[in-house]
Amino acid sequence: VTLAWLLRSNGHSVNLCVRSETERESVQTVRGVARLPDVELDAGVVVHTGWPVDPGVDGIVLAVPAQAMRATLSSLEADRSLPILCAAKGIEHGTARLMSEVAADCGWPSDLVAVLSGPNLAHEIARGLPAAAVVAASRLDEAQRWQKALSTGSFRVYTSNDVVGVELAGALKNVIAIAAGAAVGLGMGANTVATIVTRGLAEITRLGVALGADASTFQGLAGVGDLAATCYSPLSRNRQLGELLATGRTAEAALAEIGETAEGAATASVAVSLGRRHGVELPITDQVSAVLLGEASVAEAMSKLLTRSPRSEANGWD
Amino acid sequence: VTLAWLLRSNGHSVNLCVRSETERESVQTVRGVARLPDVELDAGVVVHTGWPVDPGVDGIVLAVPAQAMRATLSSLEADRSLPILCAAKGIEHGTARLMSEVAADCGWPSDLVAVLSGPNLAHEIARGLPAAAVVAASRLDEAQRWQKALSTGSFRVYTSNDVVGVELAGALKNVIAIAAGAAVGLGMGANTVATIVTRGLAEITRLGVALGADASTFQGLAGVGDLAATCYSPLSRNRQLGELLATGRTAEAALAEIGETAEGAATASVAVSLGRRHGVELPITDQVSAVLLGEASVAEAMSKLLTRSPRSEANGWD
Repeated sequence: VTLAWLLRSNGHSVNLCVRSETERESVQTVRGVARLPDVELDAGVVVHTGWPVDPGVDGIVLAVPAQAMRATLSSLEADRSLPILCAAKGIEHGTARLMSEVAADCGWPSDLVAVLSGPNLAHEIARGLPAAAVVAASRLDEAQRWQKALSTGSFRVYTSNDVVGVELAGALKNVIAIAAGAAVGLGMGANTVATIVTRGLAEITRLGVALGADASTFQGLAGVGDLAATCYSPLSRNRQLGELLATGRTAEAALAEIGETAEGAATASVAVSLGRRHGVELPITDQVSAVLLGEASVAEAMSKLLTRSPRSEANGWD
Repeated sequence: VTLAWLLRSNGHSVNLCVRSETERESVQTVRGVARLPDVELDAGVVVHTGWPVDPGVDGIVLAVPAQAMRATLSSLEADRSLPILCAAKGIEHGTARLMSEVAADCGWPSDLVAVLSGPNLAHEIARGLPAAAVVAASRLDEAQRWQKALSTGSFRVYTSNDVVGVELAGALKNVIAIAAGAAVGLGMGANTVATIVTRGLAEITRLGVALGADASTFQGLAGVGDLAATCYSPLSRNRQLGELLATGRTAEAALAEIGETAEGAATASVAVSLGRRHGVELPITDQVSAVLLGEASVAEAMSKLLTRSPRSEANGWD
């Protein structure tokens, strides 16, 4: 909805496709969604159920949960020569495929696939507060297409050609944010969260570089920026998930309580398998995954992370 | 006081030197300071006025404001063969000297000078919440001396040999935190702070590398960890300074309201001059300095930072 609103404020006509008739009626009635009262969609945004793709559109934005990306893209009766922008921050369970790879599997030529990431809490963007994001695509003109389509006076979009790095950063920071939330849930403070941000950035970067990403991506908005915002913001759903897990709730109960998708929950175990496959140590991700699978309590997992014997910082926690 | 308490909890006898007789009486009476109710100093911490240095001590910890470091070190009637640990996070005004350089000016051999930095909000450490820090020294055994002296079950100390990097990271993050506070004071949110953290880390790293620091230091606890914690923590004095500046207060009035030292205020202009001298662009630091000097309003400065035309992220805001 926020992306539809940004596109519309740049003068684009938007077809907003939602999952159900109930949702369509709700969006039609309030011209937006209840949790984002600042977003008011005008008549230039037409709300549909399902995925009717007008062949005349300039591009398709996919803002569905990562685990629903394949089903959504497969069911799109759209020309594969239409550019797409994936806004989901996750890795597909089972296949360990990134969103751009899922798009390729569904028939999109890789040079027409762009991904969006960055520190973008929706309610702040909806209020017009300054924010910035990164669009990555293998072709600069594709990245620039979405940069132009989404940039507003308060929402700044940077381009990147590191698709894998931007995607991995967005997906993995959700897992680290669960650890940050767990620390907060255990009564720890900003110092502990800072340690988790620092070591989390290190392990995200290690895995990214092993998968061919550019290390500098993790120093940018999609990397450290998004990670810090997510770990420190009480409004992040992934951090909230960690806080709930720290109360002793199971992953299932905590996710039910949050209601909306917390992408890190599905991404954690697939990140663990990616790490193993590429021989990269991911101590925080390992512990988050163990807690989500019910194999360790939050207290046990945190204790494992925080009690390794200190040494030179370059060696970190490992 | 927190450092004295950490040393004491490791069984060391501590001479705690304070500036005035009033302060000494106050610390004696409450066995600590009012703002850190969790710190209770036992009889193994003897409180002094002035700097009587017992020649039998193992080392000296300097936890004075950066701008008072030279006067403190010069007046110490201590053998220059005693190891010292500087805990101040700032750069000396006028000379642009780092704390380790000030120590050298005061007669200390550089291999006996260590510096301490990291995400270390004192009230959290005092409550025993997990935190980590970095001690840097040119000699590993000196860094390890302080690592051993300060590490506790909940306070983990890593060693580093990048003295300049650790010092610069600690000093410059205070300036960036003023910008983060100013953004918050203008009503901006976590997304904007994330942008400031990201671009702030980039400019700190640029200056650090120009001054001979190791780029990886800025990816560590003393770099990104301390920066993120300070920019996101409402309890950071430097962030509070930015928030007060955003209300239109002058730097003088805002500093008077905070009462304690906000190191970034003195460091900003000297960082600007370091940047000029080394040909490094520091857009955030420049704007913070201009606001502190009364040359720009917070709104003008923030607008300059946030309205540059977007381009590839690698080029950043510049």
